[in-house]
Amino acid sequence: MTRGKFVTIEGCEGAGKSTQVRLLCEWLDSLGIDYVFTREPGGCKTSEAIREIILSNDYAGMDAGCEALLYAGARLQNLRDTVEPALAAGKLVICDRYVDSSFAYQGYARGLGFEFVESINRKALEGHTPDLTLFLDIRPAEAFQRKHGADKSDRMECEGLAFHEKVYEGYKEAQRRFERIVSVDCGGSKEETAENIKKILTQMGIVEA
Amino acid sequence: MTRGKFVTIEGCEGAGKSTQVRLLCEWLDSLGIDYVFTREPGGCKTSEAIREIILSNDYAGMDAGCEALLYAGARLQNLRDTVEPALAAGKLVICDRYVDSSFAYQGYARGLGFEFVESINRKALEGHTPDLTLFLDIRPAEAFQRKHGADKSDRMECEGLAFHEKVYEGYKEAQRRFERIVSVDCGGSKEETAENIKKILTQMGIVEA
Repeated sequence: MTRGKFVTIEGCEGAGKSTQVRLLCEWLDSLGIDYVFTREPGGCKTSEAIREIILSNDYAGMDAGCEALLYAGARLQNLRDTVEPALAAGKLVICDRYVDSSFAYQGYARGLGFEFVESINRKALEGHTPDLTLFLDIRPAEAFQRKHGADKSDRMECEGLAFHEKVYEGYKEAQRRFERIVSVDCGGSKEETAENIKKILTQMGIVEA
Repeated sequence: MTRGKFVTIEGCEGAGKSTQVRLLCEWLDSLGIDYVFTREPGGCKTSEAIREIILSNDYAGMDAGCEALLYAGARLQNLRDTVEPALAAGKLVICDRYVDSSFAYQGYARGLGFEFVESINRKALEGHTPDLTLFLDIRPAEAFQRKHGADKSDRMECEGLAFHEKVYEGYKEAQRRFERIVSVDCGGSKEETAENIKKILTQMGIVEA
């Protein structure tokens, strides 16, 4: 059994990640590809419970280090419960957010540093570096303008534009460090962005279309 | 304002830690000492929510790495919300379990290694190494015999004797590494053990009796 490929999708608030993830899954469905879709934080029973704590506005004063450790913990559990079994069964795994979210949000925007995020995610990174990471490359300022403002339902989305701009810079810094992170041009319509994603996945041999 | 002292209490299941903690607090009360008592995992709102996940039998298959990261996250939050303000106000802080529990349980008994536990707890250890750690030094086999069996209410207590014996060895290994961990002789009655604790705290100048 050939091991499956592990593809992660990243982006700032307002980048249209939910839409692109949906369009991608519809495309994979139409091709009859055997894949597993999962998300972070969450994806399995334990990690969804951790997600509740991370994103709840009840814990608005959460320490950045605590936040980073909870993300890392939820990540490990979902790797073991969801991602690893699927990869071992030869399936393609699509994960909405992964360790690069921690680099961008906690490491960079919250100022914990890449090295700290790397050290607490060592067990995830050692065994489960993505084969490809798609970064929806659009500045939050531009994305918010298109959407006429950001969603403000959870603790992360409630952060201001300055924070999300820092997250964007964090992603660009991650991209300088990790070759596996590929920018997706989001300058056009959502259909054009979806086409860009399909092109990258086929050109890289991850999906045979 | 002189910074307060930070004292942590450790022990295996069945060692009588709850009783000793209660007797210690009663003694401090009787002396009129201004102290703060807290516990791990938990102690503050966010960390108590994390505690629910860590100890719940709903998550019986929790990955050891996830477990260690959740403990470390809850620890950081409680340091910021409970321990640090009390120390800054010159108060004595007594904490039921701290980072040595992670060394013994996750690092040693679960086999994650001391180095991993140290790296994910770096932010806690840098700023908040205890002034003194009291280790209730009794082997689980002996403790269980005295109590006619262990409590089995949460996910940790449900582990078997072999696991708890490993935890004991983990504490002894931590003791070889960290001079701050002092063994409390638990060979006598609970009142004698309490006297041993008082003696250590006064001899070390942490409590003026």
